[in-house]
Order: sequence, then C-alpha cells, then structure tokens
Amino acid sequence: MPSTILSARDLEFMLFEWLDVERLSERPRFAEHDRASYDALLALCEELATEHFATHYRKSDTEEPTFDGSKVTLIPEIEAALQKLSRADLLTLSLDEEHGGMQVPRVVASACMAWFTAANIGTAAYSFLTIANAGLLLAHGSPEQVERWVGPMLEGRFFGTMTLSEPHAGSSLGDVVTRAVPADDGTHRIFGSKMWISGGDHEMGDNIVHLVLAKLPDAPAGSRGISLFIVPKYLVDDDGSIGERNDVSLAGINHKLGSRGTVNTAPVFGDGAFTPGGAPGAVGYLVGEPHKGLSYMFHMMNAARLGVGMSATTTAYTAYLKSLEYARSRPQGRSLTAADPTGPQVPIIEHADVRRMLLAQKSYVEGALALNLWCSRLLDEQVTAADDAERLAVGQLLDILTPIAKSWPSQWGQESCSLAIQVLGGSGYTRDHDVEAHWRDQRLNPIHEGTHGIQALDLLGRKVLGGGGAALLALAGRIQETVDGATALGGEPAAHAAALKATVDRLGEVTFGLAGLGDPERIMANATVYLEAAGHVVIAWMWLEQLVAVGEKEGDFYDGKRAAARYFFGWELPKVTPMLDLLASGDTTTLDMQASWF
Amino acid sequence: MPSTILSARDLEFMLFEWLDVERLSERPRFAEHDRASYDALLALCEELATEHFATHYRKSDTEEPTFDGSKVTLIPEIEAALQKLSRADLLTLSLDEEHGGMQVPRVVASACMAWFTAANIGTAAYSFLTIANAGLLLAHGSPEQVERWVGPMLEGRFFGTMTLSEPHAGSSLGDVVTRAVPADDGTHRIFGSKMWISGGDHEMGDNIVHLVLAKLPDAPAGSRGISLFIVPKYLVDDDGSIGERNDVSLAGINHKLGSRGTVNTAPVFGDGAFTPGGAPGAVGYLVGEPHKGLSYMFHMMNAARLGVGMSATTTAYTAYLKSLEYARSRPQGRSLTAADPTGPQVPIIEHADVRRMLLAQKSYVEGALALNLWCSRLLDEQVTAADDAERLAVGQLLDILTPIAKSWPSQWGQESCSLAIQVLGGSGYTRDHDVEAHWRDQRLNPIHEGTHGIQALDLLGRKVLGGGGAALLALAGRIQETVDGATALGGEPAAHAAALKATVDRLGEVTFGLAGLGDPERIMANATVYLEAAGHVVIAWMWLEQLVAVGEKEGDFYDGKRAAARYFFGWELPKVTPMLDLLASGDTTTLDMQASWF
Repeated sequence: MPSTILSARDLEFMLFEWLDVERLSERPRFAEHDRASYDALLALCEELATEHFATHYRKSDTEEPTFDGSKVTLIPEIEAALQKLSRADLLTLSLDEEHGGMQVPRVVASACMAWFTAANIGTAAYSFLTIANAGLLLAHGSPEQVERWVGPMLEGRFFGTMTLSEPHAGSSLGDVVTRAVPADDGTHRIFGSKMWISGGDHEMGDNIVHLVLAKLPDAPAGSRGISLFIVPKYLVDDDGSIGERNDVSLAGINHKLGSRGTVNTAPVFGDGAFTPGGAPGAVGYLVGEPHKGLSYMFHMMNAARLGVGMSATTTAYTAYLKSLEYARSRPQGRSLTAADPTGPQVPIIEHADVRRMLLAQKSYVEGALALNLWCSRLLDEQVTAADDAERLAVGQLLDILTPIAKSWPSQWGQESCSLAIQVLGGSGYTRDHDVEAHWRDQRLNPIHEGTHGIQALDLLGRKVLGGGGAALLALAGRIQETVDGATALGGEPAAHAAALKATVDRLGEVTFGLAGLGDPERIMANATVYLEAAGHVVIAWMWLEQLVAVGEKEGDFYDGKRAAARYFFGWELPKVTPMLDLLASGDTTTLDMQASWF
Repeated sequence: MPSTILSARDLEFMLFEWLDVERLSERPRFAEHDRASYDALLALCEELATEHFATHYRKSDTEEPTFDGSKVTLIPEIEAALQKLSRADLLTLSLDEEHGGMQVPRVVASACMAWFTAANIGTAAYSFLTIANAGLLLAHGSPEQVERWVGPMLEGRFFGTMTLSEPHAGSSLGDVVTRAVPADDGTHRIFGSKMWISGGDHEMGDNIVHLVLAKLPDAPAGSRGISLFIVPKYLVDDDGSIGERNDVSLAGINHKLGSRGTVNTAPVFGDGAFTPGGAPGAVGYLVGEPHKGLSYMFHMMNAARLGVGMSATTTAYTAYLKSLEYARSRPQGRSLTAADPTGPQVPIIEHADVRRMLLAQKSYVEGALALNLWCSRLLDEQVTAADDAERLAVGQLLDILTPIAKSWPSQWGQESCSLAIQVLGGSGYTRDHDVEAHWRDQRLNPIHEGTHGIQALDLLGRKVLGGGGAALLALAGRIQETVDGATALGGEPAAHAAALKATVDRLGEVTFGLAGLGDPERIMANATVYLEAAGHVVIAWMWLEQLVAVGEKEGDFYDGKRAAARYFFGWELPKVTPMLDLLASGDTTTLDMQASWF
C-alpha cells in the first residue's frame, strides 16, 4: 500500500528523472553525495515522518497547546518527533560542512523535509522556524553569536522564533514600536509587545532564541529604522550553560482555525515579569549593524516564503493522496449507462466527476511540487555558480519565482484540499478523516510570511517592474528553452508548448502595457490578478518541463503525468486569458470603488 | 451602526425596488398583506435573529452537541431561540391559511428566514428541517397524518427530520436497504441503520418526527422501490398525548468541521432498544402510496435545495459584512504613494487590494441573494398562476434555476468567506472572529442535499437535455427581457447587456453541441463545468436585473450596486469563456483518465 503522506515515486521522478540531481555531484560542493546517499536519506525521512509525525497529526489538532498564565503545554508527541529529526542530523542537511552541516543539495533537503510538512505541518513548523533563525544568524550574526546560539539550535537543544509583528503592525513592519535601549555592557534592553509569534513559548528543549525587530533610540523613521536583536528566553553563560530567566513572557496565545500544533503567541518583552541582572528590560544582543534589521529579515524571508510554498504543496499533496485512497475503496452508485440498478456499486473513482476532482488535485499538487523543487534546485545553482554573472542570472529567476512559489501553492492548495473533502462527501466533512484538517491548516498559507496581496505587490512592483522587466525577460527566456524541448517532441507536448508560448508572449505584452500606465496606484491596483495569471503560466511551464522529462516513456506513472498535463493545459491555462484581458484593459473598478459605497 | 448579520437596506431594495413585492397584494392569495406588514415582519426577524440567534453563534460552535449513549445534549440557547421563532408564528409564514399559515409571499418569507440562517445556521437548521418535513406531509400525507404530526411541528412542539441516507447509500438513494414490514394493524415495522441525519435526536420539544425511506417486502429493485414512512421518536395516542417510546435509537453522532450546532446522527430503527406495543421494530406509518417515497422526497428536496442555496448566501453575506466592518476600523499601512512613513496608518479599506476583496464578496453575496429571492418570487408566481400554462412556464424556470440556486452560492459563498478571512489577515485565522466559523459552516453546502456534482448531472442531464432544451430556451427568453431593459438604459448597463447576450447565445450553441455528442458518458463528463458556466451566466443576469431596477437613481447605495455589477461583468463573467470553450471541444480528459494512472 503506497504512503498517503507523499508519493515516493513522484519525488524520485522529479529529483532523478527530471531535475537530474545526480549530476549535481559533479560540483565540488556536492561531490561527496550520490544517488545511494540521497535514496537513503529520503527513505529515512519517509520512515520518521510515517512513524513519528503522521501518528499524532489528529491529536495535535484536537489537543491544541494550552497556556496557564505562565507555561505553554504541548502534547509530548511533538517534542518526541522533533528530537527524532534533530538526532538524525536532519536539521543541518543543506548547511555548509564548516557549520557542521551535511552539505546536501537543497533540492534533496527540500524533498526530505517535504515528508515532515506533509505528515504534520504543525509539528514540523518548530524545526523550520529554528532552521530559518539559525540560517539568518549564520549569514548576519557574529562568530560569537553563531557559537552561542546557532550550535545548540542545530543540535535541537534550543528552538528559534521570528519575532516581527506587533498588534498594530502586521504587514506594516515599518511601524513596529518595540524599543531597544543600549545598556552599559554593550547589550541592549528590549521593551515591547509582539503578536502572531509561532513557537513563541513552550517547554521543549533548553531555551528559545527569539529574533526580535526593535527600534534604537536614534532610529530613522519607518522601515529604515528597524534593528534586529537576539533575545533568548534564558540568558546563556559564557560556558554555554543556561543562566537567568530573561524578561520574556506571554500576554496570551492565539486560538487558530488550523495548524493548531504550532503554538502562536503574543510575547511581551521587558514588562518586569523578570529582572535579569537586576535591571528592567529583556536582554537583547544586536545582530549585525543598527537599523539594518529589516533587510536581514527579508533575506531570511525569501527562504521562509519558499518554505511556506512547499508546506502548502505538501499539505495539499497528502490530502490528495488520502482522497485518492478513499475514492479507490468507497463503493457508491453505478455508471450512467448501467442497466441493472441492483448490480454491485462501483468504487467512486469510476465516476467521471470524481476523476475530475482527483485529476485537478493531481495537476495542482504535482505542478506546485515541481515549482518548489525547481526553486530549491536554483538555490543549489546559486551557491555553486561558476561566477558572478551566473549567480546573478540564477538569482534573477529566484527573485521572480519566489512570490509565485509562495502564493500559487497557497491558493491552489486550498482549492485542492477542498476537492479532497468533496471526494469524500459527507465523510470529508467529519473530523473522522484528515482532509478537513488539511483544509484548515492550508488556510494559513496565503496569510503568513506576507499575505497573498503582498506577494502580488512584491512580484509586480519589485520583481517585475522594479528591475525594468529584466527578470521577466530572463524567465521568458528560460521558458523558451522548455518550449523548444517540448516542440521537438511533437504531438501533445508540442501543442502545449505552443499554447504556453502564446500566453507568455501575451503576459509580456500586458506587462509593458501596465508599465505604460504611469500612475503607480493604477499600475498596482490589479497586482493580485497579475500574480495569479503569472502563477498559472509558471505552473503550466512546470508541467511542460515534466512532459519533456517524461518523453516517450511508457507505463501508468507516465500516462498519469501526461493526463495531468493535459488537464492543466486544457482546463487551467485558459483561465489566464480573461485575467490578461482584464490587466490589458487597465481596469479601475477596485480603484474607483469608494468606501462609502459598500 | 448597521447590522453585520444582513443588510436591511439591501433586502428592502431587492424586495420593494426590484422584485416589486407590493404588487403581489393584487393577487387574492396575498391580498391581506401590504408593505407595512412586510416591514413589521422583517423588523421582527432582524430583532429576534440579533437577540436570540447571533448571540450564541460562537458558543454553539465551541460547545457542540454531545451524546452519552442514550441522550443528545444541546446548549440550552438553541431551544430558547427556536421557541422564539415558533411562538412568533414564523414557522408558518408562507403556509396556506387553511393550514393555519399566514399566507405571506414566499419571497418575503425567504427574506425573513434569511435573518436566522445568517445569524446562526446551526440553530436555524432545526426549524427548517421541521418546516420541510411538515411541507412534505401537507403535500402527500393523509388528513389524519397532517393533524397528528404537522400541527405540533408548526407549533414548535415536535421537530422533524429527513431520514434518507444510509452508511453505504449517501448520494445513491436507490440503494437503501432499511426494511418496512407490514403489521396487522395497518402500520409497519421499520428495521435499519441511517446516516448523516441532521437533528436526528435531541431533547427539545416533545417529539421528533422522522420521515424515513425504506423498502417494502414486495418493492421493485432500485429507486422505484422506495417507500416513505413517518417514524416518530415517541408514539402519539389518539388524543394527541405522548405515548410509548418507539424503537429509534442512535448508533452515534458525527463530529463535523462546521455547522456544529446542528447535531448530525446515525440513527438505528428496530434494533430492539425499545419494543413498542411489545413487538420488535420501530412503528412506522406509510406516507402516500407504496414505492413512491423517492418522488415525494424529491418534491421536498427542490425546496430544500433552494433553502441550502439561501443558507450558503446568508452565511457568506454575514461574513462579508463582518469583514467590511473590520476593514473600516482596522488601521494598517499607508497609500503606495504616501511620502511620510511616520504619518498615521490608514484603515485597510483604503488599500485597492482590500477593496478588491470586499467588492468581490459584495458581487457574490448580493448576486446570490438576488437569485435566491428571484426563485422564491417564482414560487409565488407558481402558486398564484392564472392558468396551467402560466404555472408550467414558471415551473420550467424554477426547474432549471434550482440546481444553480443551490450550487452557485455554495461554491462562490465559499470563496467569499475565504476572502472575508483574508481581509482580516492573521486575525481572520483565529477563533476570536466569526469569519473562520462561517467558512467552515459554508463547506457543508456543496455536499448536502445533493453534492455539487449531482446538481451538475441534474442541470445538464435532467433539466436542460432531459426536456429537449425547452427550459434553457425559456430561460434565455426571460434573460432577453432583462437584456432589452438594460439596453434601453444605455451606458454601462447596455454594455453589460451586450456581454450577457453574447454569453447566453454561446451557452445555447455549446448546449446543442453537447447534445450532438450522442454518447451519454461523454455528454455528461463535463457536466460540472456546464453547471458552473451556467451559474455565472445566471448571476450576471441577476446583476443586470438589479441594474435595471437601479436605473438612474443616485446615492452611495446605488453607486455600490453599479460598482458591484461592473465588478461582476468585468472580473467574473469573462471566466465563462474558457469554460464554454472546453465544453465546445467535447473534452474527454477526465473520461480518458484511468484509475491506474493516479
């Protein structure tokens, strides 16, 4: 019986038949790895995810974290699972060897981690926050900070958070008002309230390392005046032992729709609950230079956005597999042309409309997974680029793909999970089956790490128009390579290639038209439509890429890839046309709308 | 401060400025009613919904029904609210005077009931199930059955259920196996297990009247062999007093994603938990003729489907209003062109993308409400038709509109509730706000009373092609009247009219093409796309209808209607084109897909 967490066969196809990961070993950074070591890692992750993460998925939803005014309590399965992850050295998969990492290609590491987010996103999130925190400190922290905080995080002893938002400043980070006051010993004292902080408190491990945005007294106004601080829950002595409790406490925890295993908190810094060193304020350590906190955060946030995209994909992927298993085993009804109403009922997968719902899901989740892995592959190319020119070229593609790799799986993963519920019918609406929980978990993804609308502003404003269209041209050039490959195959791939080529050209035309509108408010008014149109174009490209890899191969698996590609090109890509028409018209419906008219 | 349950202003517009409900008083059936009495009723419903239904909305979600093995316990607020409804005689609003009803037009009754489903669908559902049950018995029960069961239901003393599905027979009702064995006294004894029965047990009122599908010993196979029985929880003596407990018990209750206030049960009949009259089996009373149960049920089910559509609309409507209130009051960020990053933040309704999300919701919920009320208005025309020809013509429109009035609000109400969450951002993902609960409630609507896919088969197979296209022609003719009215207005309405006219013509062309495919499996393979395309056409028509009613009127309210219509015609109707293209191509992607390829 195949796993309902992820498809090992599909991962194998993507990594080794399509993305040619084995050839990465030709690059010095990855020379020590080979197919056998990747297969062993992937098998280990499937096993740990199956035995330690999937097993408490429903329990962590039902028995959500509690806060008694001083302590946050999680179900014990969460820490047990996370220990399996860190003890298998899986937190450091893609890190440099010099930092104790395994230096595995990111594309392989992404596939490995996908098993855990698919099995239990609420539990896996603690590790991913910690990895993100560690990655930021490795990039911008001092050697002493790395030694003191990063080491224990990668060993699984400390956990990390990203402590950005405040009650009045969610998307608008330039408005944070948490204060950082310099102390005589070179540290700072932090005062302020934060909001929406995942993993913001719990009793797992020995310590929690918060990365906190705050303002120094001499800070310029707005987003250029934000600094970044390490603020641990417990101070750490010079020998690395846990010291005094820092002045970090909780105002409360948020009770969420989904992703309930991940505690979400409202932390308070420096309100006097504790007085470390006998003085007021939470002790904080400046990371990098003053006032550059937001730029450090945005560096990390690109990785986090790719991570959200992958979580969205895997959440939808497991829901798809669960609905597929149900559709194969649940008898109900007969064919439309069945003559005998007393004959046996057929499995619902035999009904065309159920196949439609399964095929749509397949086209969404495999298309999204392809994009997520493609982006990880680009990260590998970036870190092993031969020269600056290559690095810049890869970076340009990554820049433009990141908002899409975050938003598309978030949006269509939601639709996909909804179809999974629909396949199960009434059963899908009960909490006896997981699909409703995946659907609830999924709803977070278009909200956190930059909302859907913010991804749209990022794509159109910063990535496309901000660079004068160069990144879009680079993307179109890369898509052309795929179009050429598919055209050479002839048949359906060639027909799909022609459709994609026409849509890409139209997207370019529409982009130039938008740029010519002049008024920034008007250019950006329909940015979300632009994001969604570009997203569908990119996923169609990913399907064409897969078709090229499929080539003439025979068998059920490859026929399934062809059918899903046919679905995406026949049912999905045409949806882009009315979106591009709308953009081409320079529509001002939403701009013209007045608040008083609602 | 306007209500966030529904918009009284919009209801006023639809009933009195658009649907011209006052003129219904010219018909003898409604002669006793006038605008003043309608206004009083609507005001009463708003008040009761506000004070007794909305008040426990969150509590009925959090403290869902429990079952201890013998009794189902609901929070007391549910019965208290339902008593308000029945004591105000609101259960009999549209019933004939001869049955103790108020004979209010259904379109007004629908608007009245909309307040309760918007305020708390989980609580309101108990009454609506009871009304549906009573309506069926009034149509098909004997005078004695009406007296014994319907009277107490309409007084609020008894509750009613629809007991159709079985664990192995949800959508496939022809497969029910519950048995009905004739007894010597003319009653029957019922044996079998049911599933998904809303309101299937509780301690409210004096009794529960189940309408149960079962098979007589001599029943033909399949759907033509199903009979309908009244099976009460308690037998009722000839003087109307409550008698012995019938053999109806519960195997358990279902724990749902949403709509949690409505207990959903798995009842068991005749398993020996009780032995009424000392004999085995649950006592049941045959309704109408043997083997005609499914046809009686389908008669009721049309009303139920219109009811589900209205509930879907009102669920989305209240979520929209709640997100609108939030958007007006929540400051965050500044305009894209703001020069001063330290200036005050603006309410998020000032951001174009937030206005997009609000305008989309407005176009969905007001378009859907228009369709629901239009259908209710057709029911009034049907019951007061001057002759059979008029009655048939109205019935034809109702037939074709019913699957759309059920499915469109269910599908787009989901999208609408999702946008409501998105407007609130992180707050929308918490259980501190109602929008996430409305989103969960909404997910039931494409599943119950015939899934989305079954509505599609009903529309294309039975309503459109089954009647040789006559109903579609009738609909197109009625739409043409609206097109003519809007064309006469000139300007935007005329442009919208031309777009609608072209799409309707194309829908007709595509329908003929489908009919010509010959193979039923192929014709029906893409029925869901047909349903969704037809749905968008119908809602565009409803927006054009509203624009004609708006005419040249001035003011914020009417400008809002114009903007929402512009949104629907500019952003939504064009989505139909790729759907019609797909249908025109006779696409066989889902038919060709093989189960082994997944």
